[in-house]
Amino acid sequence: MKQSKLFTKSKKESPADEQSKNAQLLIRAGYIYKEMAGAYVFLPLGLRVISKIKAIIASEMDAVGGQEILMTALQRKELWEVTDRWSDENVDVWFKSELKGGQQLGFGWSHEEPISEMMKQYVHSYKDLPVYVYQFQTKFRNELRSKSGILRGREFVMKDMYSYSTDASEHDKFYKDVIDAYMRVFKRAGLEDYVYVTSASGGAFTEFSHEFQAISEAGEDTIYVDKSKKVAINDEVYNEKTLKDLDLNEKDLEKVASIEVGNIFDFGKMKSEQLGLTFTKEDGNTEYVHLGSYGIGVTRLMGTIVEIFNDAKGIIWPDSVAPFQVHLIGLNLDNADVLKKANDIYDVLSKSGVEVLFDDREVSAGEKFADSDLIGIPYRVVVSAKTADKVEVKRRDSIETKMLEVNELLSELKK
Amino acid sequence: MKQSKLFTKSKKESPADEQSKNAQLLIRAGYIYKEMAGAYVFLPLGLRVISKIKAIIASEMDAVGGQEILMTALQRKELWEVTDRWSDENVDVWFKSELKGGQQLGFGWSHEEPISEMMKQYVHSYKDLPVYVYQFQTKFRNELRSKSGILRGREFVMKDMYSYSTDASEHDKFYKDVIDAYMRVFKRAGLEDYVYVTSASGGAFTEFSHEFQAISEAGEDTIYVDKSKKVAINDEVYNEKTLKDLDLNEKDLEKVASIEVGNIFDFGKMKSEQLGLTFTKEDGNTEYVHLGSYGIGVTRLMGTIVEIFNDAKGIIWPDSVAPFQVHLIGLNLDNADVLKKANDIYDVLSKSGVEVLFDDREVSAGEKFADSDLIGIPYRVVVSAKTADKVEVKRRDSIETKMLEVNELLSELKK
Repeated sequence: MKQSKLFTKSKKESPADEQSKNAQLLIRAGYIYKEMAGAYVFLPLGLRVISKIKAIIASEMDAVGGQEILMTALQRKELWEVTDRWSDENVDVWFKSELKGGQQLGFGWSHEEPISEMMKQYVHSYKDLPVYVYQFQTKFRNELRSKSGILRGREFVMKDMYSYSTDASEHDKFYKDVIDAYMRVFKRAGLEDYVYVTSASGGAFTEFSHEFQAISEAGEDTIYVDKSKKVAINDEVYNEKTLKDLDLNEKDLEKVASIEVGNIFDFGKMKSEQLGLTFTKEDGNTEYVHLGSYGIGVTRLMGTIVEIFNDAKGIIWPDSVAPFQVHLIGLNLDNADVLKKANDIYDVLSKSGVEVLFDDREVSAGEKFADSDLIGIPYRVVVSAKTADKVEVKRRDSIETKMLEVNELLSELKK
Repeated sequence: MKQSKLFTKSKKESPADEQSKNAQLLIRAGYIYKEMAGAYVFLPLGLRVISKIKAIIASEMDAVGGQEILMTALQRKELWEVTDRWSDENVDVWFKSELKGGQQLGFGWSHEEPISEMMKQYVHSYKDLPVYVYQFQTKFRNELRSKSGILRGREFVMKDMYSYSTDASEHDKFYKDVIDAYMRVFKRAGLEDYVYVTSASGGAFTEFSHEFQAISEAGEDTIYVDKSKKVAINDEVYNEKTLKDLDLNEKDLEKVASIEVGNIFDFGKMKSEQLGLTFTKEDGNTEYVHLGSYGIGVTRLMGTIVEIFNDAKGIIWPDSVAPFQVHLIGLNLDNADVLKKANDIYDVLSKSGVEVLFDDREVSAGEKFADSDLIGIPYRVVVSAKTADKVEVKRRDSIETKMLEVNELLSELKK
């Protein structure tokens, strides 16, 4: 894409009303725009990052047998009353509204109830199980405060998956598969060294639930990390008994702030009992379906990556989620030869399947370099009157520059 | 995909509470599930169709220079008050709610206001124009009645595009480009013979606005079509003067029911004047930006296709938007040789990039054929003990069957 066509522009100053690093950088670089506290527009650059993250997640959810669907945001009051999650006393994040006829309805903050109710249409026999469904949904949560940019939104994109299993052992097997799949997601998104499977309070059915916590100063959570064993304990369950249960030693643990980028819950048979979701077992008896629920905050994950990967100059995207692979910086473009050369390189890279943002704007070299650092695309490639038959290549996460021929650059990008 | 894994199941009977053909067929075939009147879940098959339609639209919007973004559903009351579109007297489809602090907010039914407000951040000079942005957004509209399936929803997916131009002539040029782009979208979606650019009432700035109307019995609109000239007039502006202005002859016109699948509006400078969206002209003077808005109902388009392409047995998808290209029907799969052959064909087709739904279920041949007709995938390919080294190929829109070798089938599919 030619940057002269991109309608967004970078800003030198951080917005005064944003305290979080992720919102400051993403707004300055033109990835997001603040509509209101906790609700952000995704601009062309931002939407490209979201698409990359979604593609990574979708491929891993498909790999464990997930089937993608899209539930509705609109929610029926009657359904959530059955499970006692409608009243504001029990769930304090509902946005509620009403139909013309006066019937109340809500905007989905989670989807266990409607998906489980829907499954009554499709699950009848043990032969219909297990079933794994997932979606990318815009969730609405009426948060009291919303000051951490896209880490905690009133409107945000979430990947939520739901597993329906015949029994606890079938459930447990899938639960473990999802832990592995989630760790692959975080690894592919560049967070391998930062995300820990974390034991947290368990709820009704299990001693522990599991969270995926990314170490970051910006986090609202506190965890104790065993870096060699690659596991962690949430502060809320940190005590001697937990250490013993999890076979961890106090002296191996480091206390850090962290962001919860994913979580998984075992609902057991509770929801199915409440909603009447049953199946006929092989022996002819009727049983309730075992439900698990698994979430990754897509926009939160994007914000977490920014919180972790940045420096004084801007964002430093991991290659896998960057909006473009190459930021082609054209200097001296008033020189027709240089302009032709820059356009040729843009064409060659694009035709080779490389995603290129080509800075063809009529602004100073200093402004182009500053914007490039702020936007944070992995490879900066400079074409100018000085680069002759080569290009100057620098990775955003390095200070080294090297002169390469275009075919050498292509080889490096294909690595 | 193996059909035995697909969690949805087809239903023999139409749901009693659905009057529309599109909802009846889509629910029976397992494309959608009704959450409430006007709000439908998109199941795996349905989401595949939506993805195909979105990809067609996105490629045509990109081709005319559109930049994709994603606005928020949450809307600030204060902003819509500026343009006098907040009150229920003026706009009767708002879903409204409120933040914890008591501030009212709304759920977006359209996005001219927030996008134009946002553009004040990015548009300052004539050099920043024109700008074309589009999004795929879930819109919320509090419709009094909602009985036509996914043709008119309370929650639905829309592609909306907005053009910001320096003046009327620049606007007009793009407006015409979009008409062409929209017609390419409808052609690619299989509706070439059904969709007409239709002159309708113009609003404040132009004599006519333009709609894209698809001829269908299910339509709520009435239009007069000139089939040879490929244009139409909406009933609301059908009179002698209009006929004269558009150079049409009463005797060439046919009165038909139709579904509005797209529309385009010229807002002139009105919104920019209301919101203060200005730019500096080349001569140094300040001017208001010219706004156009262009919509295609993505889910409505899917419903329209079903209304138009069906028969007594089910849906007949155009190839371009079908959830799969091939419905591979395996019969006699208890015979190990046939099972192996069916699996081999499934693998060969899949590896060749053909999207295949493989009916590997343990149900009768009759049930498989009935489901295949209901689901409506373009090619039905039967493998059985009888088909020997060939497969029996039938298109959903034809009664002819022919016996082909797999490589012959592949050649036919690549056409």
